[in-house]
Amino acid sequence: MKILFKNVRLLPEAIPEGAQKDGLFSVVVTDDTITYVGSIPPEDTYDRTVDGNENLLMPAFYNAHCHSAMTLFRGYGEDLPLRRWLDEKILPAEEKLNFRRVHYGSRLAIAEMIKNGVVAFNDMYMFQDATAEAVLEAGIKANLSRSIVSFDPDIKPEEDARFAESRRLYEQYHGAGNGRLKVDMSLHAEYSNVDACCRYVAEYAAEQGLRMQLHLSETEREHLECIERHGVTPAAYFAGLGVLDVPTTAAHCVWVSDEDIDILREKGVSVAHSPVSNLKLGSGIMPLRKMLDAGINVALGTDGVASNNALSVLRELQLTAILQKGLHRDPENIRAEMLPALATRNGALAMGREDCGAVAVGCKADLIMIDLNAINNIPCYDLATTLAYSADTSNVLLTMCDGRILWENGEYTSIDTECLRFEARQVIRHYFD
Amino acid sequence: MKILFKNVRLLPEAIPEGAQKDGLFSVVVTDDTITYVGSIPPEDTYDRTVDGNENLLMPAFYNAHCHSAMTLFRGYGEDLPLRRWLDEKILPAEEKLNFRRVHYGSRLAIAEMIKNGVVAFNDMYMFQDATAEAVLEAGIKANLSRSIVSFDPDIKPEEDARFAESRRLYEQYHGAGNGRLKVDMSLHAEYSNVDACCRYVAEYAAEQGLRMQLHLSETEREHLECIERHGVTPAAYFAGLGVLDVPTTAAHCVWVSDEDIDILREKGVSVAHSPVSNLKLGSGIMPLRKMLDAGINVALGTDGVASNNALSVLRELQLTAILQKGLHRDPENIRAEMLPALATRNGALAMGREDCGAVAVGCKADLIMIDLNAINNIPCYDLATTLAYSADTSNVLLTMCDGRILWENGEYTSIDTECLRFEARQVIRHYFD
Repeated sequence: MKILFKNVRLLPEAIPEGAQKDGLFSVVVTDDTITYVGSIPPEDTYDRTVDGNENLLMPAFYNAHCHSAMTLFRGYGEDLPLRRWLDEKILPAEEKLNFRRVHYGSRLAIAEMIKNGVVAFNDMYMFQDATAEAVLEAGIKANLSRSIVSFDPDIKPEEDARFAESRRLYEQYHGAGNGRLKVDMSLHAEYSNVDACCRYVAEYAAEQGLRMQLHLSETEREHLECIERHGVTPAAYFAGLGVLDVPTTAAHCVWVSDEDIDILREKGVSVAHSPVSNLKLGSGIMPLRKMLDAGINVALGTDGVASNNALSVLRELQLTAILQKGLHRDPENIRAEMLPALATRNGALAMGREDCGAVAVGCKADLIMIDLNAINNIPCYDLATTLAYSADTSNVLLTMCDGRILWENGEYTSIDTECLRFEARQVIRHYFD
Repeated sequence: MKILFKNVRLLPEAIPEGAQKDGLFSVVVTDDTITYVGSIPPEDTYDRTVDGNENLLMPAFYNAHCHSAMTLFRGYGEDLPLRRWLDEKILPAEEKLNFRRVHYGSRLAIAEMIKNGVVAFNDMYMFQDATAEAVLEAGIKANLSRSIVSFDPDIKPEEDARFAESRRLYEQYHGAGNGRLKVDMSLHAEYSNVDACCRYVAEYAAEQGLRMQLHLSETEREHLECIERHGVTPAAYFAGLGVLDVPTTAAHCVWVSDEDIDILREKGVSVAHSPVSNLKLGSGIMPLRKMLDAGINVALGTDGVASNNALSVLRELQLTAILQKGLHRDPENIRAEMLPALATRNGALAMGREDCGAVAVGCKADLIMIDLNAINNIPCYDLATTLAYSADTSNVLLTMCDGRILWENGEYTSIDTECLRFEARQVIRHYFD
């Protein structure tokens, strides 16, 4: 299968050496891979030619932190502080989850992500078989993890049911769908695990060459209580147990200290920044600029819909673009050209997908097209600026994952939305029966 | 002309007494006015029946602060502090404005607003004849004002060219388009005017029964320099000159003191809150909750596109919903149900349009329909929550102003976008020639 995109604009980082920055380009996708990026469309026979109409072709969005099935709880339990939101609303609702319910929650999430130009997500949750099936059906990518929680130091980690589930998931799904599916290990957080379990899971991940997903210093309370309990911050705690020697993505990192930033940098930890969720739950604002200055790989994550309530990496990018400026009262704190990488390449790296997240020969063809002819994007003096400040989700004209078009001109190719809408509403209607 | 909307959902404040909160309703629009809101569609002959398909019918958005023609400068001059942005980029660009350029800037702005569900805007700018013509053509509403700037205390205000222009605009356009167009007076800001001019313009506005538009305490520097110059804050300064005795909309109010809030409340000043612009320019964050607690009429404004860079009141609403929670680390600081009024009714009041901004019999038919069947709005446990946290601009299915449908299912009825796109690009391409 060979697809030619012609007459497209590219972000500066994708433009081949020597080419005009504001020129029009062609991109060829052969099967799941980008095989040409240049000014002249190569003469060849194509299965399909897409006229880009001077729109922007860019890497698709990567969502570095999500709990996809929580889409069932969109708008359920609002305007509450994190602990009350969890204890009073979310945890009781989660008691009622099962395979079918998680499957529909994940399917809803995936449909929303595809239309928003997101092709891959890091996921931490339960019943991840159901999410795995939803990912495989829909044609997108995910690093799934069964979030491990351990409170009893007397239970041997190797006998822990959640660890067993993680291992089974790994054995069953890792690499499925031509590598679209990966399975990571996950320790839910410092406050929800005992030392022995952290150490054991980290060793297992290291042995198998798996990645790790964590929540880290999301709230001040979590951060301070860790210091009370262990005498060190969550970052230092995990580092001390060897957890951060595994390639890790740490979500939130709102309350990290300067010393924590040093630890994250030294250990090569990727950080998932979720500004919408952090504001909405009243958790605070992550020190983004400090992390970028330290050279940390910062990616963007939506978190679960229950605390967002949308799955739009573009929305996270746009909030990221203005929030730090306002907070520091410095419009130069974060500049537009710093942002596309956070939403694309850095997210791919936070999922251990080195061959994704760029418009470059040899890269997997995870692409989106952004409508620069839309009224809300005229004029366009600079592409990164348009993306950071003007574009909206309605401007995503096309979403491609591994060379397969999943969304084009308002239509899905892999999802029957009528059916999904009906079935998902049935699940939700009877949820609390 | 009689239009029946049936099978629509309504926000709690629109639901007739005694009716089921989560029921389906009918709304009848006769010419430019809402003539029925209830559970049963009245038997009658309709020119058109719109099946709402269980979507949300709500008041259209009102944009309480804008400089519409600045849409020409979308993305021109980014990531700079307010004074440098003004002095180095915007003021030189504005030197090159003329009737035709402002006309196209305003037409672009209006097209974007209509698709985003905005039917009315407060405007402060120059060449307002051009904006007036654009408003009349497109079928929306605006309170236009020629922003007055006066630096020379020796020029008699009555001989000031900008005041003369304001008066001419008022005489020519106030009430045009069946009242869709209004002309307000405007003093640009404290730092850009002399006392005599402020006093004189206020007296003129009071005599003619006009409203006033101001910038107020947008930046800390502006606020502190006023105190240095006059010994009082901008709010106290304007109050002392009688300006706030005129019905006034004050934009930004980021740096107002508690005493200023008392002044604004006493004088019945409407405040236009522009969180996107305030963050993006690094100006700061307005003390919203204090103002709401004081009972001030707070509305939402996009500001000009040059500092936003979009014209979406929904985006302002959604940022408003989460920003104060994060800032105060209190998710209960602002609750979803507080927000629809800010984007609708309060905006209408900030434009002196008492008969607008509600779904109620006798009100002008300024309505939008929000797609609750969109994947990103499923599930919907509560309408205000869906609006505040989940909906996006792609969910605006229909925009109606004064009973006329201006946007429906992705199509404009009053704007030829092909032509607008072409002509606007011509204007922009040759702007700096």
